[in-house]
Amino acid sequence: MKQLLLLNGPNLNLLGVREPDIYGAVTLQDIEQQVEEVCQRHGWKVKAFQSNHEGELIDQIHQARHDVAGIVFNPGAYTHTSVALRDAIASVGLPVIEVHLSNVHQRETFRHTSYIAPVAWGQVVGLGAMGYVLATQAFINQYS
Amino acid sequence: MKQLLLLNGPNLNLLGVREPDIYGAVTLQDIEQQVEEVCQRHGWKVKAFQSNHEGELIDQIHQARHDVAGIVFNPGAYTHTSVALRDAIASVGLPVIEVHLSNVHQRETFRHTSYIAPVAWGQVVGLGAMGYVLATQAFINQYS
Amino acid sequence: MKQLLLLNGPNLNLLGVREPDIYGAVTLQDIEQQVEEVCQRHGWKVKAFQSNHEGELIDQIHQARHDVAGIVFNPGAYTHTSVALRDAIASVGLPVIEVHLSNVHQRETFRHTSYIAPVAWGQVVGLGAMGYVLATQAFINQYS
Amino acid sequence: MKQLLLLNGPNLNLLGVREPDIYGAVTLQDIEQQVEEVCQRHGWKVKAFQSNHEGELIDQIHQARHDVAGIVFNPGAYTHTSVALRDAIASVGLPVIEVHLSNVHQRETFRHTSYIAPVAWGQVVGLGAMGYVLATQAFINQYS
Amino acid sequence: MKQLLLLNGPNLNLLGVREPDIYGAVTLQDIEQQVEEVCQRHGWKVKAFQSNHEGELIDQIHQARHDVAGIVFNPGAYTHTSVALRDAIASVGLPVIEVHLSNVHQRETFRHTSYIAPVAWGQVVGLGAMGYVLATQAFINQYS
Amino acid sequence: MKQLLLLNGPNLNLLGVREPDIYGAVTLQDIEQQVEEVCQRHGWKVKAFQSNHEGELIDQIHQARHDVAGIVFNPGAYTHTSVALRDAIASVGLPVIEVHLSNVHQRETFRHTSYIAPVAWGQVVGLGAMGYVLATQAFINQYS
Amino acid sequence: MKQLLLLNGPNLNLLGVREPDIYGAVTLQDIEQQVEEVCQRHGWKVKAFQSNHEGELIDQIHQARHDVAGIVFNPGAYTHTSVALRDAIASVGLPVIEVHLSNVHQRETFRHTSYIAPVAWGQVVGLGAMGYVLATQAFINQYS
Amino acid sequence: MKQLLLLNGPNLNLLGVREPDIYGAVTLQDIEQQVEEVCQRHGWKVKAFQSNHEGELIDQIHQARHDVAGIVFNPGAYTHTSVALRDAIASVGLPVIEVHLSNVHQRETFRHTSYIAPVAWGQVVGLGAMGYVLATQAFINQYS
Amino acid sequence: MKQLLLLNGPNLNLLGVREPDIYGAVTLQDIEQQVEEVCQRHGWKVKAFQSNHEGELIDQIHQARHDVAGIVFNPGAYTHTSVALRDAIASVGLPVIEVHLSNVHQRETFRHTSYIAPVAWGQVVGLGAMGYVLATQAFINQYS
Amino acid sequence: MKQLLLLNGPNLNLLGVREPDIYGAVTLQDIEQQVEEVCQRHGWKVKAFQSNHEGELIDQIHQARHDVAGIVFNPGAYTHTSVALRDAIASVGLPVIEVHLSNVHQRETFRHTSYIAPVAWGQVVGLGAMGYVLATQAFINQYS
Amino acid sequence: MKQLLLLNGPNLNLLGVREPDIYGAVTLQDIEQQVEEVCQRHGWKVKAFQSNHEGELIDQIHQARHDVAGIVFNPGAYTHTSVALRDAIASVGLPVIEVHLSNVHQRETFRHTSYIAPVAWGQVVGLGAMGYVLATQAFINQYS
Amino acid sequence: MKQLLLLNGPNLNLLGVREPDIYGAVTLQDIEQQVEEVCQRHGWKVKAFQSNHEGELIDQIHQARHDVAGIVFNPGAYTHTSVALRDAIASVGLPVIEVHLSNVHQRETFRHTSYIAPVAWGQVVGLGAMGYVLATQAFINQYS
Repeated sequence: MKQLLLLNGPNLNLLGVREPDIYGAVTLQDIEQQVEEVCQRHGWKVKAFQSNHEGELIDQIHQARHDVAGIVFNPGAYTHTSVALRDAIASVGLPVIEVHLSNVHQRETFRHTSYIAPVAWGQVVGLGAMGYVLATQAFINQYS
Repeated sequence: MKQLLLLNGPNLNLLGVREPDIYGAVTLQDIEQQVEEVCQRHGWKVKAFQSNHEGELIDQIHQARHDVAGIVFNPGAYTHTSVALRDAIASVGLPVIEVHLSNVHQRETFRHTSYIAPVAWGQVVGLGAMGYVLATQAFINQYS
Repeated sequence: MKQLLLLNGPNLNLLGVREPDIYGAVTLQDIEQQVEEVCQRHGWKVKAFQSNHEGELIDQIHQARHDVAGIVFNPGAYTHTSVALRDAIASVGLPVIEVHLSNVHQRETFRHTSYIAPVAWGQVVGLGAMGYVLATQAFINQYS
Repeated sequence: MKQLLLLNGPNLNLLGVREPDIYGAVTLQDIEQQVEEVCQRHGWKVKAFQSNHEGELIDQIHQARHDVAGIVFNPGAYTHTSVALRDAIASVGLPVIEVHLSNVHQRETFRHTSYIAPVAWGQVVGLGAMGYVLATQAFINQYS
Repeated sequence: MKQLLLLNGPNLNLLGVREPDIYGAVTLQDIEQQVEEVCQRHGWKVKAFQSNHEGELIDQIHQARHDVAGIVFNPGAYTHTSVALRDAIASVGLPVIEVHLSNVHQRETFRHTSYIAPVAWGQVVGLGAMGYVLATQAFINQYS
Repeated sequence: MKQLLLLNGPNLNLLGVREPDIYGAVTLQDIEQQVEEVCQRHGWKVKAFQSNHEGELIDQIHQARHDVAGIVFNPGAYTHTSVALRDAIASVGLPVIEVHLSNVHQRETFRHTSYIAPVAWGQVVGLGAMGYVLATQAFINQYS
Repeated sequence: MKQLLLLNGPNLNLLGVREPDIYGAVTLQDIEQQVEEVCQRHGWKVKAFQSNHEGELIDQIHQARHDVAGIVFNPGAYTHTSVALRDAIASVGLPVIEVHLSNVHQRETFRHTSYIAPVAWGQVVGLGAMGYVLATQAFINQYS
Repeated sequence: MKQLLLLNGPNLNLLGVREPDIYGAVTLQDIEQQVEEVCQRHGWKVKAFQSNHEGELIDQIHQARHDVAGIVFNPGAYTHTSVALRDAIASVGLPVIEVHLSNVHQRETFRHTSYIAPVAWGQVVGLGAMGYVLATQAFINQYS
Repeated sequence: MKQLLLLNGPNLNLLGVREPDIYGAVTLQDIEQQVEEVCQRHGWKVKAFQSNHEGELIDQIHQARHDVAGIVFNPGAYTHTSVALRDAIASVGLPVIEVHLSNVHQRETFRHTSYIAPVAWGQVVGLGAMGYVLATQAFINQYS
Repeated sequence: MKQLLLLNGPNLNLLGVREPDIYGAVTLQDIEQQVEEVCQRHGWKVKAFQSNHEGELIDQIHQARHDVAGIVFNPGAYTHTSVALRDAIASVGLPVIEVHLSNVHQRETFRHTSYIAPVAWGQVVGLGAMGYVLATQAFINQYS
Repeated sequence: MKQLLLLNGPNLNLLGVREPDIYGAVTLQDIEQQVEEVCQRHGWKVKAFQSNHEGELIDQIHQARHDVAGIVFNPGAYTHTSVALRDAIASVGLPVIEVHLSNVHQRETFRHTSYIAPVAWGQVVGLGAMGYVLATQAFINQYS
Repeated sequence: MKQLLLLNGPNLNLLGVREPDIYGAVTLQDIEQQVEEVCQRHGWKVKAFQSNHEGELIDQIHQARHDVAGIVFNPGAYTHTSVALRDAIASVGLPVIEVHLSNVHQRETFRHTSYIAPVAWGQVVGLGAMGYVLATQAFINQYS
């Protein structure tokens, strides 16, 4: 049975609370549940993890190399500042789809660049919670 | 019955021929067929159009405002140079998902910026032909 | 009888429809009519042309060298990206006034630079449809 | 009876003397007279003021808010360096048309940017003394 | 009874030890005590927290939304690198005053920019330990 | 009896009139009065001066070296353009606190840099009229 | 019998008319004839095509992959702006020599960079009409 | 008996696993053992610490000021992003040699700059595991 | 009898007082006297003027065109910010030698560029008060 | 009898040895011989010179003004760094064709700019040893 | 018997004389002797060469390919300006360790970039004369 | 008897020949003679040296430290490219006045920056051959 790592970075624990005009009213629990449903339907399981700590996210990615087939990853603000997360992904050699809830290209300039994208398989940007579901679907299509 | 515009920009007519190590062996006809199948299954129809001419792509977007619910658009090289296509999208006020077959963030620097992204609803990047299918699915989920 | 070329670039065919908060409710037909009235009053005639195709605009400028005294030109989005239009203007050696409906200096940074301006006679910016009329008046004052 | 402020910045007192190959042989007095004639014909009056002192120009703009309907302003060299003049215009909330005698886009790079343009209503550039007359006409058309 | 969060970022635990020519001989305990005295005098209480871990600072800001009226925050080196702290502040919607002991504008260029400032209420820079007291006073003036 | 120079730069004479959504409804007279009250309470006197002329501000700073203990200075727009004011401050060797009513880091990019800050003692930014009072308090604390 | 594609971009139809101080008095017909003579002498044939339309140039390059051994290409102004032409060349995998009549390095800065050069075999710059002949000679030497 | 701190940053726990074509097959344990052998031979002891958490690395540097003579530090990806680590090193005033396994100057541009280098004693770059041994030798030579 | 204008910009009235480690102990009166002595010896007279006001310096340059053979000009801080002074010099067409007391190239980066230099005859930099004397000598050599 | 100077810069003595995947197996002697054959056929003679010393190349260019009709020059790495060679070419006023064996636009960014190009007659880039022959042919065509 | 080339660039002949606060009191002869001692102990010989001439350093590197196993190279100021030395190293294919006496990252910005580093095996920076010895040791460890 | 080193860099041997519209008709011999006359009059002697070789200029500066009181140096094109000459001047600790015949600030942008200026005593720019004489006079005034 294949496992997906659903990884969320800083401040995403506040989803639904945080700036709803940008991020919508959906909570992180809602998203995790939606992803789990898609996985169950196709015989995958999900490991969901969120942290505000860059180091904990790196540790999770390192552990993923033992039991995970792919990572749906919203690195939040670390997208734009963390070379260490980029290196972690490159180290473990797992396919990653980078997801952003909002259309980062409509926001501040520093949100237009990603350290993660060049080491990811692909990106889904701006489609809200549905972005996680589509990314999950992509893993199932490709790796089942 | 809702209609999707599947719009492809310059050089995408050569898909399958052109640099297969970057773009894969799938042809544009294959992609158009895959998108059509997804649409049919959900009661949508598709209008597929490809052109190497910036002006013809603009004309298509203008016409779309009469009978189209959303645009799945791979602007190819015009992504990085065409303010006119950006203005066309802003003019007609239709939702657009920008699709790129390859992970543009792994290629030349000038491919990392998009004039289209800030006026699009979202982006699907790097997932090959599957990117078109996921973008189509997003329209069907949101607008059916 | 002197002739003025009234040339409009991409997306200006949608004037009145397109983003009325930026461009106002006046249509391209309204503008062409206003310019024609000013010309008729001073014994000039007008040739009005709009296209979304960069190549067609270049072709028009080339033909203008046979029968036109000056060009009132709103290059739209091509203002910021087209070296080819700049070269066309330099080639034919006709006086050009660059017109923009909106105040481009209040908008995105990429709209602050113009490839056309350095080869134009002058610019009228931000004065809406009236800008075309003033530019027309300038040609009549100078070249009648 | 509406009043127009015709405001000229540094070195424009030397018009006709200064670099005639760039600025022409017309003097500032000629320009002020031309603008006055247009205004009189339409029942407006003009207040003309020139100074080489940034502070005096700011003072004039502040006073304008009591009795002026619009400002035709050639900020000369302060166009490119004065945030204080920009703030003065924003403060009083009057419509301003920025006029430049020469086509600044054909000159040194530092003359291509304007602190004034983003807070102005519009610009007339490169049309010589006629530019002042056209700008005056614009105010009369819009605000009479 | 209103509560103030006094938040200090990396290396500020070494105050008094660390580069006294730049930061002075005052310790973090001294500062916390001074702030507490001001608060007590006006019927506020203080929650003081210092960490070298970006994630722990984010966690504190998240928790603050339940019981804190404002944050006096010296983000130390994270000022210049942490988009995640910026997002945390924007998420919780609390007023923040950014404090720096030294005049950062007299130091290396990379210390001249702040990710925090645009989401803060204000800044107090260069006034040493007194800066914390003045920032505290500002909260008491505004929110008591 | 110590004296404070309360120095205000261009356009600040229009406070309360000028863009109240940015600067609030408080007038310059209100601010001067508030600062005077704080000073009187601690046995200081105040010399208040405002000018739109860069040269007059420089002259004031030069004279200050004879009878002033410190300068609370809001250089307004000259903050971002005046090397001459910077040099004046460095010349007289008096402590200066730079005050800005609005949070300049939330506004246009050119307002994020200050020629004054590197020669000032400190900055108080974004706290409105209260910023002047806190800066005054800082001088009294430090130099009484 | 090998075939050479002689491809000329925007405004080159005006050669001999256009800015003769920069481009000389030779017409495009003269150049096409010279290239044809060289080819005939070595048993090659030539297909000559000029267009002001980026899309038509792309279409020509696509068709070239069926019957052409190499392309002598003067992309004119599109040299500096067209990623789509670059991609077309990369797609068809044919050798291209980029020719410029004038020494582009003596002209405006934006003419110093070429999107075409990195995907071309080589460049011949500044040698006027003779540049086309030398490029043709290079193809004959290498590929006969 | 002098003590050396051997400090390794994010992802270095995966050495030998991670991208062996860049970093080689040596593990972190191998390196720690090699350094320990050199130290023992010269009567020094070693404290080895690795973490993926920026905050934990800062904490270690702070503690080092009590019992350590010098730090051999490979900051990994934090080299390029962590002002906080730089400040920690400057705070404790200990000599640091920055070590990189790979030649960072042959890799992505963002790896060419180091926040650590300006506060370090020196650097050893590109010499693989041997770099740690040489850095250790440098401390022993200089401080025994 | 030829006349030299000795023009000094902002803060130079404080020479001898201001930062003597950078500018030395010589006063402006000393310099004016030295220049006058050189002139008298060669039958020239001197008009000395200093102002902190940009506008007054411009006015002086304008007046100089009636009775002055050359200008020895230390524009102080306006060197780096005043396009208006540059235009004034270009307007009157008089030869100017730009003098700086200190070696501006050893100071802050913003002091390395001069708006004045491109319209001046030459520069004498870093030679203290002697620089004025050498510049004066140059005028006498060339124009007597 | 006309003479051509065939000038080669640093490291070109190693041709055939040096990085054959970039530069091919042809030696400098081969190239000199090929150029000589072309010249002899048209009644020209050749002076061939190679040096790794910038100063010796300058000396050669200086001497060329006495007996040389044109220079075929591959400046090697000095292309990108030597203003002195550029000035030497401008000084002697001889026509120069700059030749590069490899397509420099496919290599590192610093190889994309040339100090020589703006003072040369033209460039032949990327065509290997044949580039020298074509450049020689160009001189013979134009100057025989 | 293996041979090491110890190569020193411009101004290093003045070591011990030149700016001892930056470079220390050790002379070049001292360094050459230290390196020779290490080599002798391990059965290597040394060829030491210093020159202020870029061309002579290139010549030495070319000759090294016949009899040298590795190069310890302090390129001095040519580090930051010489593409020709970089190409020489790439041409001969020998391993090079770049040594700098001082910590170049603590000095002027232009000393932070190296043309040599990307073609070197590694770097030893800031460790004074000891840096040469460690680099020598690295060659002996790796290549004996 | 004090000695002055009159040092001239690349291409200055061609003075009088080279681009007389920029550099005038004076030869290097004329300049050396003029400087010698001034020196003789004040009891100084002159050592004049010109070279096109960067290394020889460095060697001369090194030797100067034994018998020279100051250097009048026109580094020609090496002004803008040679860190090695800058280091040579810093090494020997002699006062240098940098002289340029033409006003470099009116020429190409790359001539506006000088590696030499920050280590020189001063600069004399744009005053032609007279610049050398004034620089010589400065040394005699200061060091006799």
